[in-house]
Amino acid sequence: MPSDRLMRIHSPEFKAMSDRVLRATELTSRLNVLPFEDEAGKAELFERILGRPLPASATIYPPFYTDHGLRLDLAERVFINQNCTFLDYAGIRLGERVMVGPKATFITVGHPVDPGERREWLTGAPIDVAENVWIGAGATVLPGVSIGRDSVVAAGAVVADDVPPATLVTGPKATLNRQW
Amino acid sequence: MPSDRLMRIHSPEFKAMSDRVLRATELTSRLNVLPFEDEAGKAELFERILGRPLPASATIYPPFYTDHGLRLDLAERVFINQNCTFLDYAGIRLGERVMVGPKATFITVGHPVDPGERREWLTGAPIDVAENVWIGAGATVLPGVSIGRDSVVAAGAVVADDVPPATLVTGPKATLNRQW
Amino acid sequence: MPSDRLMRIHSPEFKAMSDRVLRATELTSRLNVLPFEDEAGKAELFERILGRPLPASATIYPPFYTDHGLRLDLAERVFINQNCTFLDYAGIRLGERVMVGPKATFITVGHPVDPGERREWLTGAPIDVAENVWIGAGATVLPGVSIGRDSVVAAGAVVADDVPPATLVTGPKATLNRQW
Repeated sequence: MPSDRLMRIHSPEFKAMSDRVLRATELTSRLNVLPFEDEAGKAELFERILGRPLPASATIYPPFYTDHGLRLDLAERVFINQNCTFLDYAGIRLGERVMVGPKATFITVGHPVDPGERREWLTGAPIDVAENVWIGAGATVLPGVSIGRDSVVAAGAVVADDVPPATLVTGPKATLNRQW
Repeated sequence: MPSDRLMRIHSPEFKAMSDRVLRATELTSRLNVLPFEDEAGKAELFERILGRPLPASATIYPPFYTDHGLRLDLAERVFINQNCTFLDYAGIRLGERVMVGPKATFITVGHPVDPGERREWLTGAPIDVAENVWIGAGATVLPGVSIGRDSVVAAGAVVADDVPPATLVTGPKATLNRQW
Repeated sequence: MPSDRLMRIHSPEFKAMSDRVLRATELTSRLNVLPFEDEAGKAELFERILGRPLPASATIYPPFYTDHGLRLDLAERVFINQNCTFLDYAGIRLGERVMVGPKATFITVGHPVDPGERREWLTGAPIDVAENVWIGAGATVLPGVSIGRDSVVAAGAVVADDVPPATLVTGPKATLNRQW
């Protein structure tokens, strides 16, 4: 996938982003110790994490992890199960009625593979998940991936390429080895 | 695997299940902020999560995640390491001396893949893990899977099919690509 | 990988190790409920978890999981993102400038696959990660693995064999299945 150079690690933009990462991490560290029934406390923290209120019809089960939050765009009726992670600096959109299973991970930022440049640049590209997509438990979606409407990502799959609409994405099957 | 239609999303049974999910999530949100040495606090919360006391010989390291709990049947001498997840509505049994590594995930419920039906039905099937099975770190066990006694699931494997006894289940090997 | 027999489960060494696991778990249960901005509280707990202060140039985002801690050797400028797990009894070294993505898992201990011996022995071998390695999100590194300098482990890969320097380790690609 295209994962563009976003900024140099030693730059004012990087410093600004890093400050937001610290702030977002403070906010999620408070969110994830609230009793689940503290609706007012959760609503206030989600508003500060996302920069706007969580849509009334969206559901998020704790714990919930992001490192930026302000570029995580959650539509109406989104459902996010326990223990999901969103590194959203380069932008993540979850369309209406997207369902996300527990322990799924969305990553929009990274580094060059070239070792000389790895600590010099932040790379990244946005993730776009269209309406009615279902992301299975423990799946990982990498920078730059778009997933078309109605598609399904099976549990544990690592998605590095775009997914057309109405497509089932499967990871590798496990192998049975008779042993004893 | 067979994953049966369990109930319509808009039904009294679904509402009853959802109420239990909210309650179980409240209970785990309290469990997972307790200091580990608070044995009395943990015992009380496990009893409310599971609907009966945790067996005295069972060990669970925190954090621990379930969304229902009442259908999670843990035998004597079960060992569950950190950060495991049990979506147990359709029933999960871990037999005696089952060992579960960190970040393993057991999922008994889901949705039809068909996009028109996906938001209409909850599907699912029970998971049965026989005596002395060892589930490796980060493994995922999907709805309807039975794992026979003494078997081993390697770290990171996604198990979608039944596993006979005395079998080693392996996921895919990583590939080394010389790069620079 | 070679994963040696470390000790019998019923032995004084095992009892000593288990006592440390309880203590380390108490400490991480406290660490992971601290507000992220409590620098003094975090520094004190990391010192007790690791048996020495966290290097000043190292960064760890919460939550952070280990079950022993005293054999986790973190060099200067190590960066560990959210939700990583280190079972370090047999020793884990992360060299200078190693970067670790969210939800990565490092496991140095295990059990024999043979079912008769599984509950009798603890096996294990150390993990060594050289300078400037980047471990991707959700990757798993197994007992005995050495990873050479500058290498990259892709998101979700399970690493069971040694990795030479300057190597990109990739897991399996997901498959697109047109469905509807």
